[in-house]
Amino acid sequence: MNERSLRELLGAVQAGNVSVEAALATFKDFPYNDLGFAKIDHHREVRQGFPEVIYCAGKTTEQIVSIFRELAEKSTGNLLATRAKRQVYEAVVAKVAGAEYHDLARVIVLRRGEQRRLGSILVVSAGTSDLPVAEEAAITAEVMGNRVERLYDTGVAGIHRLLSQRDKLRAARVVIVVAGMEGALASVVGGLVDKPVIAVPTSVGYGANFGGLAALLAMLNSCASGVGVVNIDNGFGAGYLASSINRLGEAET
Amino acid sequence: MNERSLRELLGAVQAGNVSVEAALATFKDFPYNDLGFAKIDHHREVRQGFPEVIYCAGKTTEQIVSIFRELAEKSTGNLLATRAKRQVYEAVVAKVAGAEYHDLARVIVLRRGEQRRLGSILVVSAGTSDLPVAEEAAITAEVMGNRVERLYDTGVAGIHRLLSQRDKLRAARVVIVVAGMEGALASVVGGLVDKPVIAVPTSVGYGANFGGLAALLAMLNSCASGVGVVNIDNGFGAGYLASSINRLGEAET
Amino acid sequence: MNERSLRELLGAVQAGNVSVEAALATFKDFPYNDLGFAKIDHHREVRQGFPEVIYCAGKTTEQIVSIFRELAEKSTGNLLATRAKRQVYEAVVAKVAGAEYHDLARVIVLRRGEQRRLGSILVVSAGTSDLPVAEEAAITAEVMGNRVERLYDTGVAGIHRLLSQRDKLRAARVVIVVAGMEGALASVVGGLVDKPVIAVPTSVGYGANFGGLAALLAMLNSCASGVGVVNIDNGFGAGYLASSINRLGEAET
Amino acid sequence: MNERSLRELLGAVQAGNVSVEAALATFKDFPYNDLGFAKIDHHREVRQGFPEVIYCAGKTTEQIVSIFRELAEKSTGNLLATRAKRQVYEAVVAKVAGAEYHDLARVIVLRRGEQRRLGSILVVSAGTSDLPVAEEAAITAEVMGNRVERLYDTGVAGIHRLLSQRDKLRAARVVIVVAGMEGALASVVGGLVDKPVIAVPTSVGYGANFGGLAALLAMLNSCASGVGVVNIDNGFGAGYLASSINRLGEAET
Amino acid sequence: MNERSLRELLGAVQAGNVSVEAALATFKDFPYNDLGFAKIDHHREVRQGFPEVIYCAGKTTEQIVSIFRELAEKSTGNLLATRAKRQVYEAVVAKVAGAEYHDLARVIVLRRGEQRRLGSILVVSAGTSDLPVAEEAAITAEVMGNRVERLYDTGVAGIHRLLSQRDKLRAARVVIVVAGMEGALASVVGGLVDKPVIAVPTSVGYGANFGGLAALLAMLNSCASGVGVVNIDNGFGAGYLASSINRLGEAET
Amino acid sequence: MNERSLRELLGAVQAGNVSVEAALATFKDFPYNDLGFAKIDHHREVRQGFPEVIYCAGKTTEQIVSIFRELAEKSTGNLLATRAKRQVYEAVVAKVAGAEYHDLARVIVLRRGEQRRLGSILVVSAGTSDLPVAEEAAITAEVMGNRVERLYDTGVAGIHRLLSQRDKLRAARVVIVVAGMEGALASVVGGLVDKPVIAVPTSVGYGANFGGLAALLAMLNSCASGVGVVNIDNGFGAGYLASSINRLGEAET
Amino acid sequence: MNERSLRELLGAVQAGNVSVEAALATFKDFPYNDLGFAKIDHHREVRQGFPEVIYCAGKTTEQIVSIFRELAEKSTGNLLATRAKRQVYEAVVAKVAGAEYHDLARVIVLRRGEQRRLGSILVVSAGTSDLPVAEEAAITAEVMGNRVERLYDTGVAGIHRLLSQRDKLRAARVVIVVAGMEGALASVVGGLVDKPVIAVPTSVGYGANFGGLAALLAMLNSCASGVGVVNIDNGFGAGYLASSINRLGEAET
Amino acid sequence: MNERSLRELLGAVQAGNVSVEAALATFKDFPYNDLGFAKIDHHREVRQGFPEVIYCAGKTTEQIVSIFRELAEKSTGNLLATRAKRQVYEAVVAKVAGAEYHDLARVIVLRRGEQRRLGSILVVSAGTSDLPVAEEAAITAEVMGNRVERLYDTGVAGIHRLLSQRDKLRAARVVIVVAGMEGALASVVGGLVDKPVIAVPTSVGYGANFGGLAALLAMLNSCASGVGVVNIDNGFGAGYLASSINRLGEAET
Repeated sequence: MNERSLRELLGAVQAGNVSVEAALATFKDFPYNDLGFAKIDHHREVRQGFPEVIYCAGKTTEQIVSIFRELAEKSTGNLLATRAKRQVYEAVVAKVAGAEYHDLARVIVLRRGEQRRLGSILVVSAGTSDLPVAEEAAITAEVMGNRVERLYDTGVAGIHRLLSQRDKLRAARVVIVVAGMEGALASVVGGLVDKPVIAVPTSVGYGANFGGLAALLAMLNSCASGVGVVNIDNGFGAGYLASSINRLGEAET
Repeated sequence: MNERSLRELLGAVQAGNVSVEAALATFKDFPYNDLGFAKIDHHREVRQGFPEVIYCAGKTTEQIVSIFRELAEKSTGNLLATRAKRQVYEAVVAKVAGAEYHDLARVIVLRRGEQRRLGSILVVSAGTSDLPVAEEAAITAEVMGNRVERLYDTGVAGIHRLLSQRDKLRAARVVIVVAGMEGALASVVGGLVDKPVIAVPTSVGYGANFGGLAALLAMLNSCASGVGVVNIDNGFGAGYLASSINRLGEAET
Repeated sequence: MNERSLRELLGAVQAGNVSVEAALATFKDFPYNDLGFAKIDHHREVRQGFPEVIYCAGKTTEQIVSIFRELAEKSTGNLLATRAKRQVYEAVVAKVAGAEYHDLARVIVLRRGEQRRLGSILVVSAGTSDLPVAEEAAITAEVMGNRVERLYDTGVAGIHRLLSQRDKLRAARVVIVVAGMEGALASVVGGLVDKPVIAVPTSVGYGANFGGLAALLAMLNSCASGVGVVNIDNGFGAGYLASSINRLGEAET
Repeated sequence: MNERSLRELLGAVQAGNVSVEAALATFKDFPYNDLGFAKIDHHREVRQGFPEVIYCAGKTTEQIVSIFRELAEKSTGNLLATRAKRQVYEAVVAKVAGAEYHDLARVIVLRRGEQRRLGSILVVSAGTSDLPVAEEAAITAEVMGNRVERLYDTGVAGIHRLLSQRDKLRAARVVIVVAGMEGALASVVGGLVDKPVIAVPTSVGYGANFGGLAALLAMLNSCASGVGVVNIDNGFGAGYLASSINRLGEAET
Repeated sequence: MNERSLRELLGAVQAGNVSVEAALATFKDFPYNDLGFAKIDHHREVRQGFPEVIYCAGKTTEQIVSIFRELAEKSTGNLLATRAKRQVYEAVVAKVAGAEYHDLARVIVLRRGEQRRLGSILVVSAGTSDLPVAEEAAITAEVMGNRVERLYDTGVAGIHRLLSQRDKLRAARVVIVVAGMEGALASVVGGLVDKPVIAVPTSVGYGANFGGLAALLAMLNSCASGVGVVNIDNGFGAGYLASSINRLGEAET
Repeated sequence: MNERSLRELLGAVQAGNVSVEAALATFKDFPYNDLGFAKIDHHREVRQGFPEVIYCAGKTTEQIVSIFRELAEKSTGNLLATRAKRQVYEAVVAKVAGAEYHDLARVIVLRRGEQRRLGSILVVSAGTSDLPVAEEAAITAEVMGNRVERLYDTGVAGIHRLLSQRDKLRAARVVIVVAGMEGALASVVGGLVDKPVIAVPTSVGYGANFGGLAALLAMLNSCASGVGVVNIDNGFGAGYLASSINRLGEAET
Repeated sequence: MNERSLRELLGAVQAGNVSVEAALATFKDFPYNDLGFAKIDHHREVRQGFPEVIYCAGKTTEQIVSIFRELAEKSTGNLLATRAKRQVYEAVVAKVAGAEYHDLARVIVLRRGEQRRLGSILVVSAGTSDLPVAEEAAITAEVMGNRVERLYDTGVAGIHRLLSQRDKLRAARVVIVVAGMEGALASVVGGLVDKPVIAVPTSVGYGANFGGLAALLAMLNSCASGVGVVNIDNGFGAGYLASSINRLGEAET
Repeated sequence: MNERSLRELLGAVQAGNVSVEAALATFKDFPYNDLGFAKIDHHREVRQGFPEVIYCAGKTTEQIVSIFRELAEKSTGNLLATRAKRQVYEAVVAKVAGAEYHDLARVIVLRRGEQRRLGSILVVSAGTSDLPVAEEAAITAEVMGNRVERLYDTGVAGIHRLLSQRDKLRAARVVIVVAGMEGALASVVGGLVDKPVIAVPTSVGYGANFGGLAALLAMLNSCASGVGVVNIDNGFGAGYLASSINRLGEAET
């Protein structure tokens, strides 16, 4: 419902082609579908370039299946459901053929049509325990049409593992850094590249880690400039933000 | 000291044009200048496209002036010093002619050469008290060569002020949202645009705001996807990150 | 034991109709019944217009059944038990016929006599995962004699879903806003209506949400005036407060 | 801009009385005035029944004076500016005759026209040190047209001081409880009355009080039902919410 | 090993009745018994008037049984083991006849000899869910030789339940107040009595209770003087402290 | 207004010696005096054995002087005002002759009549910086009629300083331990004595001390049984509690 | 890849014995082996004197077995895997003969070749519940070639147990102190010895212990100088640090 | 008062050369001197190899001068007073000739006799603002007899500045890392060296730094093994610990 369509609608009212009541209805009926427990935001694909993504935690399997089907029918692009258990996937795929499941990342994906292939996003992770979050980020970015490179287990305690991959770091258009414990990797990577860095703290660690708080604070206080932070364990958010950045570059070309 | 220059150096060693000791020295003498209390990272302009920025808090006036002069002499682009008091500026401008001071944003700027004008970054702020942080972000982005639009005092308690400016929101390539108190503006803006959003929590508020913690947590937990967060009151960091994102698009064209 | 009854009692003592010892006993025997592990506050229905509500968490099934029966016998209005598991309900209904169970809201209700129907309370919730808390609020308000409207899944990331329902917002006499994650919905709703808003943060979210702390702080710091906050996940408290506000209006008519 | 006026506007477009461009402008020009650093929300008086209130902390004296004058000219009701220092008041009164200053509450008030007198709000406070916040609440409610009673220095350590005033408690339509330290007063009052209770934690205390956190948590966890909490030291918010509740009752009569 | 015994020992050395090596050994062999995983502090009964109490959490059943037996053999007074599961009790009673188990309080008790009966300690608790902690306190005090009165379910939301029992409050020599949620009961009781009050916050509550933090902070900030606080859920500590206070009075008589 | 006086009053009503209205008034007029900003609780001296103590922080000098005078006139025992600056004292002594000031402890004392001398309370402190709090505790206890011993600068880093004073520790009837930093002194003392120990954490320290939080948590988690904790820097509270414990023993003799 | 080997490599390039491409590869191929999910840092044994240690939490059994085998084949010293469950051990020992499991410490050890025996490290622990962490520290230090003494269950509540072992304390070259609850043991030990003290807070405790935070803060604020702190429950880290300190002394001899 | 001297004393008692009373006095008179407000621990120089260090914060100038003089007279080694303001120094030097003042580190030093020169300690700091803490560490170590190297302004955002100094890192026997903001430097250094690393978080930073908490948590969670952490801004503690480690090596040679 942008300015142009509003202008057209008002023109149609002026011309008598659209009645006042019909115009009124249009203003009211924004495009969403009410399932009772959920209002599916079909407008989002138009507004933000990607359909609503389903965050499965806290929803019943029935609710997830209903929303997934609704989106599968009313939208045309790839679909994504995050924090999904395998049994949820099985209920989804029984209704929506072609849905895939990624165990490590705990996401359900439905790929449709030709896949766009935007320039490269690099996902760097600190340790093996950070992989689920890193994969959530990587698959999110892939599903949204980006090429994704991975550089895993490059924690700063053995910094030569990272430094030896400087070419990969420089080749990326956007870098996602996934790290738990003290989260120092974000600062080191942020100092090595001149591209936007998205930092994802993970809850990996124990004791005074306080469920990811240590890495979160470290990343927010990074001495390297140009680092944006998302929530603890929020691989999806990082993938989404990286994609919107990457698309920005592409859109210009 | 990228791969190409390393290759050349090794070739020169092989050819006998550079001695082993000289090559060894090169590996050691990375390009920084040691002032004793500070090692000026002249390599940064090459590595990250903008010279080192001076964070003035916690440094003596003498140290700031020294660093500013060193950068003014050894680099060629615009210079920026943040969290600078006016008296610091006066000491700087006595040594480095042409330095400007921005009261509200508390930054010192030295503009040099022709200014690049990248596509537009929009800085949105919630309330009048958030202006110093918003201006720090805006001026940082301007100094780094971006066109900057401002949309101030559009807190969500009177959301029509924001909604009436949707055109501005959509025209931006990157949006910086600056908000204190409950920081809800980031989520609302994040849901309206399909561009990267950088959220800056401010310490504006009192009581259970806990120095910006309320806005910080809100922004990290934003229900809108595609929002990256920087530290509380870190207008500079937001401007820097937005610039690196914006430049990415430009670089591709 | 209000002023009038005290005056009557003293008059009876003066008139010799009540002995000093009996009067003394009355002052001591405030109206509660001691079950040993619990003192049932039968005075509450008189004092606050609704019998004591049973908070089931941390009580044994036997204790809950005893208290429920005691209240069922000694009071006359509707009864409510919150945070009740289904097996607790089954033990209750075996002793108190007519008790109902609401799965989503986890409450046991006993409706008795003709139901009052006060003006309308609107319960707005942000996401599907917030429904249990929203329903606890809604049913509490219903049981206490209010008409309740629901407006669910209207998070601010798709703000048109909320804006399209402004009529509903304006028709309500009291609005309860239930939201997890960053809790921004409370501020947006608070800015749209001129009625009291009760905000309920939920523990929905992860990472830096810290069990609902993010939404709680956001709501306490709301830039919209006229928002009162209850504890995290405290749907019952919100429904109770909304009812006491709504009743206030009714009582005056 | 409610449904009726929208319907009329569309009818005028249909009838040719209003051009498309003019209608378009109306949709865009929501009623606020942009002072550059602030967008005065003149719509608020219509939407919420009271003009925008000025929160002075973090604003320069010049900004406050400008906003106060703008509101004095464009609105007709009482005006309120909170957290105002005396020197700010002096700058305001130089431009806006008739403005009053309340030292203890640190508010500037401009009273205009005949004052409405809604039913009574009672402000109860725990200790002498809580008075500034209590007065901010009381004056806010008065300025918004409510009768206000005060019951000060009735902390629970000498609970007979409170119990002896039960008549006052029962006569109120809304009760505001202002308390620092452990904030127990809210629970005790909440258990004595059947009216809505607004609890305001104050930062009065030291040590493990943590700037009001102790009282805030206590009030959020109150064992008395029907208590809504506002931010620490937020007397204004409590007065505003109490007024919107009180007005609800009045509006019905 | 007090001054008198030291004097005697030195006298014995002087008199040649004790060799230097033997005296040396005495200084080294303080009276504890090393079980390998634990050093049983048999000196404690002498030093503090009650044998070491076994805190069972984090110990294996085997360790608990060993320590219990060791204490049963080497000491003569009552024994106490806290935070014990029933199966631990069963293993203990198989080896130490006469040990009792208290389900609610989760403690194992071995009573021996004639029980002292010191003056009365009163345990007041706020709600039914606080009973396990209250009982831990009550039984601890009983086992240590005190008469104990109980006053349960007297939360401040129905304060008449407490006020009607003022005689009990005044008759006590020490009062233990056990309360979760907002912990206001400690302040109210502290204001009613002139005896030492020991406050025990419990973890009863949810949301912004943060595992008992709300009640803990409230009790530490109590506006009533003369309140000492122990750790969250530490019924044992409260019973122990109350006993040491009560004994003080007795010792003087 | 204890049971006996209530009984007498009711008898007088029965006998016709007191009218219903007069009796009613008595129930209402609990003994306090309302200064407007404060309700002086004259009942406290009867109820708790010591007049109300004035906490000066957050009160104006005028308020403090008024309250002090009111108490000086209406009560007969010693008076105490804590957290008082010297200039407050000077205003007080101008109106109430004989008031003394203790610089280190920042308290104003008025001693009247013969001083009681209860058995000994020992105040132990860890470091020189803890002295103000230790002195506040000591003087409070002295003013309330106790003999007080001091044992200062005995931190556990040089534990022989404490161990060499075991006689003093054992001679005390109640021990107050004042310590900042890590607060370990409370546990060590708690393990050495069989008397009640009141622990006062101080805000002495820096960094991760967090204003006394470190010592507070340590004292609450003390591995020594029988330790009660008061608020950070609350020397007054510790002195008051120690006095009420000490008096308990005395009262029995 | 130290200076000497770099010098040799460059000499070889100069002499034509090594090609530019081969030298280039050497700079890139730092010695690690990429298993896909993990990059085994074989360089660590050279760089830090002990092979990479496997932290098992958050890794799958398959990953752990792979890494353990890789390290067993490519390195020559002892191996260590921490936080390992018994079933993980069983999977490891099936592939790597000779691996041992320590139940209490939850570590897998592979001892190879002759064991070095550096001077003595003393592990002191406060309570029986601290043993798992203490054993993790002790075994780590043993595996790294140190002699280890143990002094367990010496909490400060019975300080004679510690003082009687002063000889052991003084004989140690490095002391590790393991304590939960209030962590006071670190300060007391730190004041008794003139050797480096490594303090390990444990999560033993409850309530306001907050998962080890109390002991952590206490240790960081220790009034004894010369205490270094590691993460909560990080026995491994303490053992490793103590070994690197102990080795330092040995290396000099 | 070690075993040998105890043995001799007992022998003397046995031989009749020392009376029982005299021996008793010796046990009691541990070597400290009581100044009233402070007990100077002269035993410390014997026990820990360095006299008591004066922490000036929270002490009056008079107290500091008294303690400094007492130590200057009764001990023979170097003396150190930390957190001292210049005016304190001036009062000290007026009484104790030869005392020096270090502005940046805010310490007073008295050097006496020949200075020992232990092997080298390296102090690495991240930024210019960390210098005061770094210097406090460096001077502490120097005063205690160690050679100290400094490597300043080597934050990880320009990691080549650190990597180019690997020789210095490797030459050190102990490394102190001083860093604020995100504290990542500790992990990077910890991964590069095989020597003990002492990490000092500083309070440099703002916003979500929370006074050094971010760096503190990061250092405690370091993915590099062998890092011990001291309190925020505790340069003294780091220098002291490093010295005790360094001395260990020396002592063995």
